[in-house]
Amino acid sequence: MTARPLRADAAQNRCAIVQAAKQVFAIKGANAPLEDVAREANVGIATLYRRFPTRDDLLEAVFADKMALYCQRTADAAELARTRPWDALSDYVLFILEAQAEDPAFTEVLIAPLKGSKLFATERRDYLRSSVKLVSRAKAGRAVRADFDHSDLYLALVANSGLIRTAPEAWRRLGAYLLEGFKAPGAGALPPAPKSWRRSTSA
Amino acid sequence: MTARPLRADAAQNRCAIVQAAKQVFAIKGANAPLEDVAREANVGIATLYRRFPTRDDLLEAVFADKMALYCQRTADAAELARTRPWDALSDYVLFILEAQAEDPAFTEVLIAPLKGSKLFATERRDYLRSSVKLVSRAKAGRAVRADFDHSDLYLALVANSGLIRTAPEAWRRLGAYLLEGFKAPGAGALPPAPKSWRRSTSA
Repeated sequence: MTARPLRADAAQNRCAIVQAAKQVFAIKGANAPLEDVAREANVGIATLYRRFPTRDDLLEAVFADKMALYCQRTADAAELARTRPWDALSDYVLFILEAQAEDPAFTEVLIAPLKGSKLFATERRDYLRSSVKLVSRAKAGRAVRADFDHSDLYLALVANSGLIRTAPEAWRRLGAYLLEGFKAPGAGALPPAPKSWRRSTSA
Repeated sequence: MTARPLRADAAQNRCAIVQAAKQVFAIKGANAPLEDVAREANVGIATLYRRFPTRDDLLEAVFADKMALYCQRTADAAELARTRPWDALSDYVLFILEAQAEDPAFTEVLIAPLKGSKLFATERRDYLRSSVKLVSRAKAGRAVRADFDHSDLYLALVANSGLIRTAPEAWRRLGAYLLEGFKAPGAGALPPAPKSWRRSTSA
């Protein structure tokens, strides 16, 4: 059986809901009430649920393009790290901090889906695998300190999540400080990365 | 007219409320509903308001000891910075991050009182003045980079505020990275500190 194309008004509703969700999520985060989205889209909540049976369905529609870009950008960084490990890693760290400052809701989707959630499961596996490659190439190329850990990318995002609510532009300065720390040539051993993070971010 | 000492049961109530508030604030933050505090203390909300007419009165009672310690610790660091600027600054940064991880509610009180709030106004002026001395001595002693800014202490706290909800022990690693960045000998210029912070943290 072939899925019937949506009737014109249904397609229009779908588009209006996605646009409204972008705005509402940008202001209230990825857990904003779906009632707010329906109201902003000028449709009933029943219509919203008919088009998007779960919040995850809506999140995937809203963030599909960004997620594709994120995966591509991570794969590119991993590739660049073969020849220019420091440029690849440092540009990537600033990219993820800036992307988060510009769209905190997207970063919520990216880093904090519930355990076992299928939300962007394929894409998340994909960019995690690339970022693990990026980090191991950066380490192999001695671009970062030996005890740099893949979870330090997560540490940077979580630290930045505190900042973006207070001063949106502060990610630049945090990024500059962290990058100094990440490469820090002659420094002593770091305190270990949180155990729970080491597990959750290994690909 | 001399203030009459509290009757025994009133003093007992006061003590129970402060103890209960410590627990409730530790779990729910400094903005926790005062009804929760009253319930935990086993007193009516009217009794709570009779003893502590405003939330600030209660916060000052709960955090008086910690605030005194914080002021003292900051003054000591400023003093030590005369002779050992790097030790003074680096120990102090780790102290504030650890204190925050141990008691997020206290740090809320410390860094985020409403504009014009009189909450711990004297103490906040006091420790700010000491921390400005600490930073300027650390800079004069070339212990930190020339473009280190007093507001970077605030940056560290705000970044840490994201971490402590996720992995309580991660402050150690964040602190180590930031300290590497703060001293970073030969690095390029930093992106500027957020303007609003420069104003709000100058003593």
